[in-house]
Amino acid sequence: MGEFELIDRYFAQLGARRPDVSLGVGDDAALMNVPAGHELVACVDTLVAGQHFPHDSHADDIGWRALAVNLSDLAAMGATPAWATLALTMPALDEDWLEGFAAGLGAIATQHRVALVGGDTTRGPLTISVSLMGLVPAGSALRRGGARAGDLIYVTGWPGDAAAGLALLQGRLQGAGADRGALELKFRRPEPRVAFGARLRGIASSCIDVSDGLAADLGRLVAASGVGAVVRAAELPLSRALYALAGEARAREFALGGGDDYELLYTVPQTARNQLFQQAASAGAPACHCIGEVVAGRGVRVLGERGELPLPRGWDHFGP
Amino acid sequence: MGEFELIDRYFAQLGARRPDVSLGVGDDAALMNVPAGHELVACVDTLVAGQHFPHDSHADDIGWRALAVNLSDLAAMGATPAWATLALTMPALDEDWLEGFAAGLGAIATQHRVALVGGDTTRGPLTISVSLMGLVPAGSALRRGGARAGDLIYVTGWPGDAAAGLALLQGRLQGAGADRGALELKFRRPEPRVAFGARLRGIASSCIDVSDGLAADLGRLVAASGVGAVVRAAELPLSRALYALAGEARAREFALGGGDDYELLYTVPQTARNQLFQQAASAGAPACHCIGEVVAGRGVRVLGERGELPLPRGWDHFGP
Repeated sequence: MGEFELIDRYFAQLGARRPDVSLGVGDDAALMNVPAGHELVACVDTLVAGQHFPHDSHADDIGWRALAVNLSDLAAMGATPAWATLALTMPALDEDWLEGFAAGLGAIATQHRVALVGGDTTRGPLTISVSLMGLVPAGSALRRGGARAGDLIYVTGWPGDAAAGLALLQGRLQGAGADRGALELKFRRPEPRVAFGARLRGIASSCIDVSDGLAADLGRLVAASGVGAVVRAAELPLSRALYALAGEARAREFALGGGDDYELLYTVPQTARNQLFQQAASAGAPACHCIGEVVAGRGVRVLGERGELPLPRGWDHFGP
Repeated sequence: MGEFELIDRYFAQLGARRPDVSLGVGDDAALMNVPAGHELVACVDTLVAGQHFPHDSHADDIGWRALAVNLSDLAAMGATPAWATLALTMPALDEDWLEGFAAGLGAIATQHRVALVGGDTTRGPLTISVSLMGLVPAGSALRRGGARAGDLIYVTGWPGDAAAGLALLQGRLQGAGADRGALELKFRRPEPRVAFGARLRGIASSCIDVSDGLAADLGRLVAASGVGAVVRAAELPLSRALYALAGEARAREFALGGGDDYELLYTVPQTARNQLFQQAASAGAPACHCIGEVVAGRGVRVLGERGELPLPRGWDHFGP
């Protein structure tokens, strides 16, 4: 089986069928219809084996993650995902692997009504790049740069769980049973907050997704907004499983410095709190833990019970 | 310098400034405006070092190629390119390399009025994936599947030159002087036929870009159209440089089987020939060499002076 049959077989019909796709996989490019009154939203993320997931990860988890990390970027814009293209580089044609990869990618694509509209498959070291396009009502996208002093800082879900799950998989953290399983699942199958991101339009003053660690990504948000942030360590939401396996101090380190959360970190003017609570109540997800406040100045400070805590470094592929 | 400063420094302002970009590099995703009456066109192509370009290629040539191959896909749709995202995986932070890469990518982006709106830089084996988005008047895109028996088959430019250029660089073909330089340049700096592709809207019944070899890509076009093709070897346009260095027989092999041409291969109903000639005359490019005819049946046959010639295999990354 050659490259083209391979693409046809595994990727031609992956994800949702969408009436706004005029032409999908199989030509030189795909054709899609953008509805009036909407902006096009686009992002790209790459996964490299050994960098973004362990070499022994299951193929279906890799396929899931490849789209999940992009869905999280669109969630942070308040956008609705629509169409994806896949650039897949792999060392050899392994049909079992491809079948698993396509199943994982297809499952999350279908869940979020994303159609795979194009792909390019090449031979080389395992590298997966997904480009995701979506839509947002014109002028309503969330951005990093809108936080103002006095706004409250919120995070969805349970930051640190995914990083602890990876630490368990890699033997850097010990544990067993249901707690271990829950944390590992948070790493293996991140659930981007797409629906809740859309609910934040018109409420949040700024938003970013947590991929490189809460403190580092908050640092980016406040830098883009020209403000500072104070986080109260005691308010960090720690999951029961994380607390049980890591203990409080290490759990906070995971929550502040661990990557791969794919939660939303956002700011809300105090005047919009009631709107936020209404959205959070009907969202059915752990959607609004207030962890601190936007302040004048710059940078992120984390306050513990006995004063300021040192900041963890966020993930940086080329950092020192 | 970390990953984020790196992206900012080299890629934040690359390519054209476009008023339809509401938000470019630097947030979780980019925001663009699609004008009414247009379809969105999207494609992706990956370059792997040693697969798609020699390991010792100049960084600026790699940057140029990374966008050129995608521009060629959009040209084959008759679309106008607009916005690109870049997924760059590289083994280490090499500022000289990045500067060259950005210069090459920026040069061809500016030439075709493409804005780089997003990027992801990761550490790993050198792999470059560009996603390109563009626009086409709704319903007017060229496709592979529209060729009908009786249509004439045309190709732009001088197929085989780029493959001969690569053969020269790799020592599989010998030559010197201006001919060598011209062929190497065709490989190093492909010039996708974007403007001419747009002129083919309403004229060509089908179109594909030649990336894997003329015969193989023609095979894909006729398969998508449910027809066959007869190519007359004597009509293949061979450049003077290719003829001089390779001789007639080998020149034809390069023209039929060599990849990396990034020319357009298209079919035109006989009734539309005058329209085609008018467009070609004003295009100022070697835009319409008729090389054969679409026939009923299936597959590609190449007729030489003494009967049918064997078909070369097209490039297939996972082929036997």
